Amino acid sequence: MSKQPVHLVVRGDLDDCRVPLVSEPLNADQAERLAPSFKALGDPVRLRLLSLIASHAGGEVCVCDLTDAFDLTAPTISHHLKVLKETGLVTAERRGTWVYYRARAEALGLLSTVLAVPQPAAAQEGHA
Amino acid sequence: MSKQPVHLVVRGDLDDCRVPLVSEPLNADQAERLAPSFKALGDPVRLRLLSLIASHAGGEVCVCDLTDAFDLTAPTISHHLKVLKETGLVTAERRGTWVYYRARAEALGLLSTVLAVPQPAAAQEGHA
Repeated sequence: MSKQPVHLVVRGDLDDCRVPLVSEPLNADQAERLAPSFKALGDPVRLRLLSLIASHAGGEVCVCDLTDAFDLTAPTISHHLKVLKETGLVTAERRGTWVYYRARAEALGLLSTVLAVPQPAAAQEGHA
Repeated sequence: MSKQPVHLVVRGDLDDCRVPLVSEPLNADQAERLAPSFKALGDPVRLRLLSLIASHAGGEVCVCDLTDAFDLTAPTISHHLKVLKETGLVTAERRGTWVYYRARAEALGLLSTVLAVPQPAAAQEGHA
């Protein structure tokens, strides 16, 4: 009955952080919970892995296709995928021999909202 | 004549990275240039500093007001502000005794766009 909601729960319950930081300052607790997600994105290999997963047709990528895209060992790729999974940026599902990865739109959208800038502010800077 | 555009130039020229990673995968070069910005955000103190600067009325904060908000030494705060500045997330201007910081809406907006998820995708996940 309740197998579905797991990947909908934002890791570390970040729901109260869904506010642009240009609107109001984060408190210490919110910053502690948000930082690991940005840290996970702060590595070029993980950024590329996430973009390969997130942009893949069908929304799902076999780990076997991800390792082929990099000049890195499988354990290194696995480590980076584990970080992405632990911060809730992707989900992983084993089916048979392989593990399949999906990006969590909910998590990406939340981080995007945190960094979002209202249009007038962006325009203002453009004319400064 | 040309004193203005400095803070409009995205650090490391990230303009070609202004594409949601759900739309197309980043190449290695783009990922290398984007990662430092996310890494800068991957620290709770820097996230709070940036949110305090970005959300401040008038858009500008004196470093003297930032140090008061944390239970950290001035050199530690200075180090974190330097990282935010070096990655182009804030600008700094010395006026008299103090340095004044502003968030770069352009840089925040670009990172927000990279992580943005089209509404249908987010809705789809909600109903999965």
